[in-house]
Amino acid sequence: MLSKNTVKFIKSLHQKKYRVAEGLFFVEGEKSVVEVLKSDFVVDLLLVTESFESRNSPFLKGYKSELIRVTQGQLEQLGQYQSNDSALAIVRMKSNTSFVPSDRELIIALDDVRDPGNLGTIIRIADWYGIKKMVLSPQTAEFYNPKVIQATMGSFTRVQFFYENLDVVFAKWKLPVYGAFLEGDNVHELTQIEPGVILMGNESKGISPEIGKWVTKKVTIPGFGQAESLNVAIATAILCDNFKRLIGK
Amino acid sequence: MLSKNTVKFIKSLHQKKYRVAEGLFFVEGEKSVVEVLKSDFVVDLLLVTESFESRNSPFLKGYKSELIRVTQGQLEQLGQYQSNDSALAIVRMKSNTSFVPSDRELIIALDDVRDPGNLGTIIRIADWYGIKKMVLSPQTAEFYNPKVIQATMGSFTRVQFFYENLDVVFAKWKLPVYGAFLEGDNVHELTQIEPGVILMGNESKGISPEIGKWVTKKVTIPGFGQAESLNVAIATAILCDNFKRLIGK
Repeated sequence: MLSKNTVKFIKSLHQKKYRVAEGLFFVEGEKSVVEVLKSDFVVDLLLVTESFESRNSPFLKGYKSELIRVTQGQLEQLGQYQSNDSALAIVRMKSNTSFVPSDRELIIALDDVRDPGNLGTIIRIADWYGIKKMVLSPQTAEFYNPKVIQATMGSFTRVQFFYENLDVVFAKWKLPVYGAFLEGDNVHELTQIEPGVILMGNESKGISPEIGKWVTKKVTIPGFGQAESLNVAIATAILCDNFKRLIGK
Repeated sequence: MLSKNTVKFIKSLHQKKYRVAEGLFFVEGEKSVVEVLKSDFVVDLLLVTESFESRNSPFLKGYKSELIRVTQGQLEQLGQYQSNDSALAIVRMKSNTSFVPSDRELIIALDDVRDPGNLGTIIRIADWYGIKKMVLSPQTAEFYNPKVIQATMGSFTRVQFFYENLDVVFAKWKLPVYGAFLEGDNVHELTQIEPGVILMGNESKGISPEIGKWVTKKVTIPGFGQAESLNVAIATAILCDNFKRLIGK
């Protein structure tokens, strides 16, 4: 049964300060909950409707922690979805562990991308293009924000990430860093590209000068009309698409 | 001075039924208001802060309709922006007039794209790639929804559009129609493409079968990871980018 205390606890996880204090976040909706059950994330509590349980018994077999059966109405009270007839999971955050990329992979670095929807969309793009690692500046949106999780459509389970001052990581890694600028090389005209870091900047300010100094190659998405810019997630997608076209699998 | 009736009237335009009844919509924020003043849209009423007025006097010179000076606080009461220290314009909708594309241009058709943010982002992408015409199925989000206008970043002033049953227009136009499907030709491997219609489908259902029958070439955005799909605005951007790379200016 769903106690008042559990309701209060789950609702508290809508706020970052409680997520951070508890080291927990929530995931909702059938697809995302199934993805998290299949992943290496640790689920502490699962709220499921009867219909979710019957549809997804294979993914629930290995699940050993607390499970509470709830109604659709209860789920919609607890989460941010207007409609949720499936499940909500309380999941442990991963520790902020750094990685070192190999020199044969493409990775994404975000310099203060503030909008959770943009971050979530970029994580989904990374997963589409087989990019497995991301590094996020401290001012980038919080990975575990429910809006980020929602926008990733489950892809957050397949992308490794850590938060760190980009200055620090770029100094350490010594990899090619590609940044989108107005006066860079036209990505349609490139004939080859070395794997490295695709660096994307803040929604209004772009790549900051302190971080921009690490860019080893400026690239440009050619425009054919009058729009002054593209949304950062759109620009990330176009760069990933062009880079993967040149690099291949 | 800003009367109570004017406040009430502007607030009513947040709802579609009043926008449609009045044939008016609102545009807010410095960039979008300047774009609308530079465009062929007719502005009926302009609310401006002192600082907007002094920064943008060249764009205000030709403006002959009603202008009311307001404070930042008043603007934020009237619009949807949390922060707006510049302007809000009440603008006349254009009539839903059909067009016939030439056989040398790329256009975009949307089959029930429901999310206003997606529609707005796609309009901005169209403008970036110099695509000047869009046709929208009747169930596609409303062009004049404030969230659509906001997401276009002013690009709504440069894209011609009309709402019509896509069945009707495709029967009439007899142009190549490109649709994104999982089993289409890989867009990275295409060596040429004829100008025509890029057709994008609904966020969850994709292109409907009735409309899909008009597709003359199925195309696929190659995936390299495990994400099952891309957001519709992201997919639109990647198709536009690949098509313009092949077609050129």
